[in-house]
Amino acid sequence: MSDITQITPGWLGSEELELARARMPILYVEAVPVRVDDSGEVTHVGLLLRIGSDGAVSRALVSGRVLHHERVRDALLRHLEKDLGPVALPRVPASLQPFTVAEYFPTQGVTPFHDPRQHAVSLAYIVPVSGDCRPRQDALDLVWFSPEEASSALVQQDMPGGQGVLLRQALAHAGCLT
Amino acid sequence: MSDITQITPGWLGSEELELARARMPILYVEAVPVRVDDSGEVTHVGLLLRIGSDGAVSRALVSGRVLHHERVRDALLRHLEKDLGPVALPRVPASLQPFTVAEYFPTQGVTPFHDPRQHAVSLAYIVPVSGDCRPRQDALDLVWFSPEEASSALVQQDMPGGQGVLLRQALAHAGCLT
Amino acid sequence: MSDITQITPGWLGSEELELARARMPILYVEAVPVRVDDSGEVTHVGLLLRIGSDGAVSRALVSGRVLHHERVRDALLRHLEKDLGPVALPRVPASLQPFTVAEYFPTQGVTPFHDPRQHAVSLAYIVPVSGDCRPRQDALDLVWFSPEEASSALVQQDMPGGQGVLLRQALAHAGCLT
Amino acid sequence: MSDITQITPGWLGSEELELARARMPILYVEAVPVRVDDSGEVTHVGLLLRIGSDGAVSRALVSGRVLHHERVRDALLRHLEKDLGPVALPRVPASLQPFTVAEYFPTQGVTPFHDPRQHAVSLAYIVPVSGDCRPRQDALDLVWFSPEEASSALVQQDMPGGQGVLLRQALAHAGCLT
Repeated sequence: MSDITQITPGWLGSEELELARARMPILYVEAVPVRVDDSGEVTHVGLLLRIGSDGAVSRALVSGRVLHHERVRDALLRHLEKDLGPVALPRVPASLQPFTVAEYFPTQGVTPFHDPRQHAVSLAYIVPVSGDCRPRQDALDLVWFSPEEASSALVQQDMPGGQGVLLRQALAHAGCLT
Repeated sequence: MSDITQITPGWLGSEELELARARMPILYVEAVPVRVDDSGEVTHVGLLLRIGSDGAVSRALVSGRVLHHERVRDALLRHLEKDLGPVALPRVPASLQPFTVAEYFPTQGVTPFHDPRQHAVSLAYIVPVSGDCRPRQDALDLVWFSPEEASSALVQQDMPGGQGVLLRQALAHAGCLT
Repeated sequence: MSDITQITPGWLGSEELELARARMPILYVEAVPVRVDDSGEVTHVGLLLRIGSDGAVSRALVSGRVLHHERVRDALLRHLEKDLGPVALPRVPASLQPFTVAEYFPTQGVTPFHDPRQHAVSLAYIVPVSGDCRPRQDALDLVWFSPEEASSALVQQDMPGGQGVLLRQALAHAGCLT
Repeated sequence: MSDITQITPGWLGSEELELARARMPILYVEAVPVRVDDSGEVTHVGLLLRIGSDGAVSRALVSGRVLHHERVRDALLRHLEKDLGPVALPRVPASLQPFTVAEYFPTQGVTPFHDPRQHAVSLAYIVPVSGDCRPRQDALDLVWFSPEEASSALVQQDMPGGQGVLLRQALAHAGCLT
């Protein structure tokens, strides 16, 4: 009983989240943080650097769940602040039309996207960021890459689960796929 | 116990669905069925006609949940077949980029969209349909309207929960908002 | 002869422009200037106020031609600065995918858009503006409207040539059509 | 004088076209012809095969000018019929929102797109084609490639002027970039 009262309404306890993950697609948002010049053109893409418990380096986009009764915009802002810190000054787009919808399946090969934990459906946005980024949580660093570097094999191989594909979809949408 | 074994894995029992609805955003797809001419221009919009238990007439878009381990494309096809019958010949777009994302909140006023049962987040698509539509399930009829008629106050007032707004967003996207 | 030498290469003399207008579609850009809140949601739309030689009031979006060897981004910036002044701080989107393409025909009724002077094809963008707007050129003022006001009959009737339709398409795209 | 009277109004004589090309951006449409499965997913991409006067093989998308007083939809249909024949059964999308705008400059390096003849601005669309394609005009053949093949270095190197980039932008938009 005490368990129930400790759960913030609208949030799932970890056991319930496990249960839901086995039964329903989970709604995610993903943001590709970019630096833009005065004309709005993307000059750099920001990727989070993480080191796994096995020492493996990986690079990731900003990503996370949408909570119950949370707007997509607010979920984007919350995850951007969680991953980039409080002074990143992200500019969430005026339109909620995502540049793509990424479907992560627990089974590999259904789509280019794979998440062993769950079936996640992710609304993906390009988000210009003009402030100072100070990664928090489990990220070691945020590294800025040119569009060319970001789509290179070297960077792509460090992005598991299909996020490398999603990144190149973002670059294509922004007109800077090389 | 027999209840549990009867549940298809990946589907929620009705009790579990109630629980999930109180805790997580539920992923939906919505389709605006349209007739197009040879140049692809929208000539008519199809709306489902329903009569509630209280006798109230309402008009609706094709709409429904995405199931666990189901692709967005397959959810669209399933709901189109469920609502329009097996020979409607819908053409799901080549790109999954929706024309908008509609956020239905159980609380009114957060967005133009409202669903008293749940927090639903809906990916919305315009779907040209060239075959014969035979509404099934709980719909009485599918009625085709010109874009002008579809955005008229007369039709709009019969579309609850903000679907009238979503319909006009679709017309705007297709270039036939009047 | 001196006329010819005075023409900047890539620019059309007024006579040549008349000739081209009678023979080719002319490429335009249009920007819907908006104020957004911290979450990126549109709170206000800016419309230019003009008074015609006949005293008629009209309201307009930012609009103008793309010049030879000019990028779409640079044309947007140039017209935004021309119409809103040098400290408007417009944020041209990271992607050049317009929310719509508006086709203005010299003949009425082909599309909702009409321009008696020419066949113009316009790439339309929503552009958040955070600075101080000081209309220049032939505009008297820039007036900010809420999305509700902007789509009202009162404002719509002051927008000739179909720009009222384009404005509502922008509001629909931004999720604030009412 | 007889030259002038022979010119269809709204069409440019070849001399005038040369003049216009030196002075204004020329509006183009480009179509990526695709085969889709029942769920709308792209299975193949069609590329025109051409052999230049120097014997060089090149592959191209469907592409061409928009004429005076011609709708974008009609220009798409005209060029699709010109390049794929009369029974290709193309399905021009319901919305004119292009997946991207490609800017071809006569100067290399301004954008990924280059056209030595002119400054062309091209509205690009993915067009599902369900009929029989019989290339006409100057194309030898239309060859269907899987998305993997289409984005391979082998195919990309045969696509001059940046059309290989545009093709990969289309694949990214359709969710089948590999």
